Amino acid sequence: MRIVQKFGGTSVGSPERIEAVADIVRKATELCHEVVVVVSAMGDTTDELIALAHQIDPRPSARELDALMATGEQVSAALVAIALQKRAIKARSLTGWQAGVATEPVHGAARVSSIAAEKLEQVLADGEVPVVTGFQGIAGGEITTLGRGGSDTSAVALAAVLKADLCEIYTDVTGVFTTDPRLVAAARKLPQVSYDEMLELANLGAQVLHPRAVENAKQFGVPLVVRSSFTDEEGTVIVDGNNLEQRHVVTGIAFEPEVARVALIGVAVQRHGLAAVFTALARAGVNVDVIVQSVVQSAEVDVSFTVKEEDADLTLGIVRGLRDELGYRDLVCESGLAKVSIVGAGMISNPGVAAQMFQALADLDIPIRMVSTSEIKVSCIIPAAHMEASVLRLHAEFLESEARVAANS
Amino acid sequence: MRIVQKFGGTSVGSPERIEAVADIVRKATELCHEVVVVVSAMGDTTDELIALAHQIDPRPSARELDALMATGEQVSAALVAIALQKRAIKARSLTGWQAGVATEPVHGAARVSSIAAEKLEQVLADGEVPVVTGFQGIAGGEITTLGRGGSDTSAVALAAVLKADLCEIYTDVTGVFTTDPRLVAAARKLPQVSYDEMLELANLGAQVLHPRAVENAKQFGVPLVVRSSFTDEEGTVIVDGNNLEQRHVVTGIAFEPEVARVALIGVAVQRHGLAAVFTALARAGVNVDVIVQSVVQSAEVDVSFTVKEEDADLTLGIVRGLRDELGYRDLVCESGLAKVSIVGAGMISNPGVAAQMFQALADLDIPIRMVSTSEIKVSCIIPAAHMEASVLRLHAEFLESEARVAANS
Repeated sequence: MRIVQKFGGTSVGSPERIEAVADIVRKATELCHEVVVVVSAMGDTTDELIALAHQIDPRPSARELDALMATGEQVSAALVAIALQKRAIKARSLTGWQAGVATEPVHGAARVSSIAAEKLEQVLADGEVPVVTGFQGIAGGEITTLGRGGSDTSAVALAAVLKADLCEIYTDVTGVFTTDPRLVAAARKLPQVSYDEMLELANLGAQVLHPRAVENAKQFGVPLVVRSSFTDEEGTVIVDGNNLEQRHVVTGIAFEPEVARVALIGVAVQRHGLAAVFTALARAGVNVDVIVQSVVQSAEVDVSFTVKEEDADLTLGIVRGLRDELGYRDLVCESGLAKVSIVGAGMISNPGVAAQMFQALADLDIPIRMVSTSEIKVSCIIPAAHMEASVLRLHAEFLESEARVAANS
Repeated sequence: MRIVQKFGGTSVGSPERIEAVADIVRKATELCHEVVVVVSAMGDTTDELIALAHQIDPRPSARELDALMATGEQVSAALVAIALQKRAIKARSLTGWQAGVATEPVHGAARVSSIAAEKLEQVLADGEVPVVTGFQGIAGGEITTLGRGGSDTSAVALAAVLKADLCEIYTDVTGVFTTDPRLVAAARKLPQVSYDEMLELANLGAQVLHPRAVENAKQFGVPLVVRSSFTDEEGTVIVDGNNLEQRHVVTGIAFEPEVARVALIGVAVQRHGLAAVFTALARAGVNVDVIVQSVVQSAEVDVSFTVKEEDADLTLGIVRGLRDELGYRDLVCESGLAKVSIVGAGMISNPGVAAQMFQALADLDIPIRMVSTSEIKVSCIIPAAHMEASVLRLHAEFLESEARVAANS
């Protein structure tokens, strides 16, 4: 069996943690596994390196920032290799360019374009454990990085190319939970979730695993396990929805505070200005989340969308600047909101779930400002003051004891 | 004019220092120079990385230590490039492998075997300042380092390959002095020294520039300048002895405390065991300095040599272990010694200089335990208690005002 083990920043955050990582890798090698290790930079190293660059120039060039940041993983890869060698395990650190990880010629957030597997296959054939730097690659002799969460992506890409049987993502949480256990005491660790559910959960605040890595894992059919490097506990297996042993209607409750809603009232339909708004917002780095449009009259629509509260002013400025182009009658901005979502692959075949959610919120007299749905998710935008109560209620409603409903069973 | 500017660890020790370095480089570019920058790791970074490895394993593998240490220069190269770009100077950091610095396939102290100059020539042709990581190279896809002082060696090698007109070594001292100004208030900065004088001075304690770099500069005829990145002061030019404008008999006084003398009395000549002693000491990492041998009887010699005081016990153990092989009658070890040397290219043609040194020490009643001479150096081993007085006296004798003697003039 061949496995890729990826260790995040907190898992390699100190020499002691690196020793613990080496023990985990040793256990896997003792089970006759072929192991490929992928590491992030130690602890806050990446942020510290960026801060150093910012002390010199608040806007450093993306090329040099990549060259700078890539050192973080090189340090942890060398240290993990040293810790393995101390345990009499043959190991060899490999940087992005040494491992043949080719990316697009883009700095800061490149995508992996190909991996020349021969080098890694050779290291494995030599009976050595390759310890590969995550987060980085090479493009035409230039050092590139994959953006935040890039080490997860590196691990999945390596698992796909090396046809690994499993890709283990070691982090500081024990798995994927039904909701944030800091908020809901009754939150449970999920033994399994589907890639799609994980994507919805990851995008909605359960930042355990980077969405890009999940997408890639889904695309290449790489079975993922999310688990903690701090305990022996079993983690959460992330696989194709069809392979799930048991489907629940609702798998988890996600939530996100500090949301602002922007509404453009009476937008002239024929002007086609909406694309201009969202293009301008994207260029300004504003992440637009939920978008809802409804026709009011035949020639007019109302458009509402949410942004992070901190981006609200920037967003209003951009929208006002495009007023002539858009021809809206009124502009409304509402801060102090939150997004609460229920996620579950079983929803597709259970159309009553959304209604059940709305009723639960209505029971608590929580006003719903916006609604957005996908096949496996229902999101409601509500006043932030009600977020905690709504999550507790929805968790109880969908995920605790008798109230739980197994899908199609 | 093409110049290589090398900046040591203290010169790039902080974001502020890196800004100062960028200002120095800018000045050079404004004078229409083609500039190649070579950098060391920031401050104590290399020692910190080694300490980190040692926390995991006191004897980490040389390969992984190289991969680990090489990150230090990559960080400073990227930061210097960022600081240059902030000043609207086109710049580009290059690691050892990116700059095509090939070394022997040895870890920890590799020698530069070749440099593929095309890449750097291309960067220069593009009007960019290449900022190259010192201290490191590549051998068969493996990251290698050049050992301590390796960044000086990198700079000189690049200057040689790129046929630079000058190689400036920026450090935290303003140049090469006649002796240590902390000890002798009258010490003067030398405007010029020869490569050979610099080698003798460097080996004898004036640790401004790594001897290997000086050797390479001499071999390839690279003119060096040692100067400070902290001031605008002119530095010391290091050139071929024949190019020196003015030769002095004595150029500088070097000294070194904490020396121990080991004497083997009555070594049987026919046994040829001496090679075994010095081979065994070299293998144990003991650096033997002065070696003196004198014939006592036809079949016997006395051999004395000096080691660092801290290596004295190890040395005695090794010598005792080889007693049968060597067949010496007596073994003597004397600690608490120091070495004082006068260095100068003009000595060759002034045979009375050694006598003048012995007389100066005799005037102070300082006993001389050993003497060693080369064409441009006379070293005396004396009790350490007299080191300071002897350096002051020798500096006054040879290097101050009227007492100075210009060679052959």
